[in-house]
Amino acid sequence: MRNLKLTLAYDGSGFSGWQVQPDAPTVQGTLASAIGRVTGEKVLPQGSGRTDAGVHALAQVATFASASAIPAENLVTALNDLLPASIRVLEAVESPADFHARHSARAKTYRYRIYRGAICPPFLARYVWHYPYPLNLEPMKQAAELVLGEHDFTSFAAVDPEREREDKEVSNIRRIFSSVWEQAGEELQYTVRGNGFLHHMVRNLVGTFLLAGRGTLQPEDLGRILKACSRSAAGATAPASGLYLVSVEY
Amino acid sequence: MRNLKLTLAYDGSGFSGWQVQPDAPTVQGTLASAIGRVTGEKVLPQGSGRTDAGVHALAQVATFASASAIPAENLVTALNDLLPASIRVLEAVESPADFHARHSARAKTYRYRIYRGAICPPFLARYVWHYPYPLNLEPMKQAAELVLGEHDFTSFAAVDPEREREDKEVSNIRRIFSSVWEQAGEELQYTVRGNGFLHHMVRNLVGTFLLAGRGTLQPEDLGRILKACSRSAAGATAPASGLYLVSVEY
Repeated sequence: MRNLKLTLAYDGSGFSGWQVQPDAPTVQGTLASAIGRVTGEKVLPQGSGRTDAGVHALAQVATFASASAIPAENLVTALNDLLPASIRVLEAVESPADFHARHSARAKTYRYRIYRGAICPPFLARYVWHYPYPLNLEPMKQAAELVLGEHDFTSFAAVDPEREREDKEVSNIRRIFSSVWEQAGEELQYTVRGNGFLHHMVRNLVGTFLLAGRGTLQPEDLGRILKACSRSAAGATAPASGLYLVSVEY
Repeated sequence: MRNLKLTLAYDGSGFSGWQVQPDAPTVQGTLASAIGRVTGEKVLPQGSGRTDAGVHALAQVATFASASAIPAENLVTALNDLLPASIRVLEAVESPADFHARHSARAKTYRYRIYRGAICPPFLARYVWHYPYPLNLEPMKQAAELVLGEHDFTSFAAVDPEREREDKEVSNIRRIFSSVWEQAGEELQYTVRGNGFLHHMVRNLVGTFLLAGRGTLQPEDLGRILKACSRSAAGATAPASGLYLVSVEY
């Protein structure tokens, strides 16, 4: 058996997230079906992590085992011919047997895009959060710096006990390596790199940084919110449409 | 009655074109229903021209008559609150009684986008034509220059007698003011400005310029194709997804 590693980009807006579901279109399910048609094997590719409905990926990583002899580089064209245009295989390579898209991941980078103009161009509607109300960038930058390092991120994790048990993620401690807001044309973009992320964590961080941008919170409140270890201490979950899994490092 | 003029952007990919149809989502029908909810009046806004299914607009213009007292500038917010995110009203102004979105138009500009990279990013799939095969830009530029000026464009018009009769477009003569191909990052873009365009004309021009880019035609063949006044003399119709109505001049 070979261990094949795919790098994927997808537009999440037409999918009910990454994880396969019986009666909904998912990225994992769509990919599994294309792999099945190419290799003749029934496989469930394992992603570096789940993305929720509407969340996009610039370079998701997925692995699957295959006895097929098809050269890895030919998989790119073969799969892209079968996949919808909303999912593209960017690269396929053979990996060591012990490589696993999720367990081997050492860092991930996510980006969140907020469109600030009064009227959101229809071509961006699926790809940003349209938030045209007043915001101060400086306190958002300051708040973002306060999550750097190792913290218990329970306040920013979806209250989702079943999923957590299943994932065996008993600890909510994660390390954030970088956490930066910047202006990019008509957008504010938040880019965060860490050793792992809890369910909804980036969207809940963005929703909380927004409260700092509006003046509802002071940047230094982030310390108190982290310490509270309670979802209700933090801000609302920002919409899925603005979120991108940018890259996974191994 | 006031004569109201709207400027609209739309993502055409979810619509069966501009023109209202009984059982299909159209831009005109969706807009008419939003206007009806705002003004309480049953109106059918008249566009500067129809766009086909999947064709986009950066600044389509539409007019409608209304007895409502709502200030034109408030219409922007009121309509955008009701319209799907794929249609945005960019501007609303009151126009002279004799202004008509279609009959008053003096020039229109269209743009066509071709994505040239080997793998089309999923976020662009609805907004370009993905054509990764070899093309020479120089002959495409030369061919595009040969349609400048006044010509009978029958060779580039959809064979569509019913629509033509209805439109009373007895003449297929149009004047092209500019016609330019250029490289823009990973894309080739064709921008054309003229006093009017026949049904499918830009897409048929693009399909024909592509034959020059592939070497199937010589640029100077454009003269012969125009003179033939026969649809079968020209190239295939390029896909709708790459086409944008950029602006309408009055």
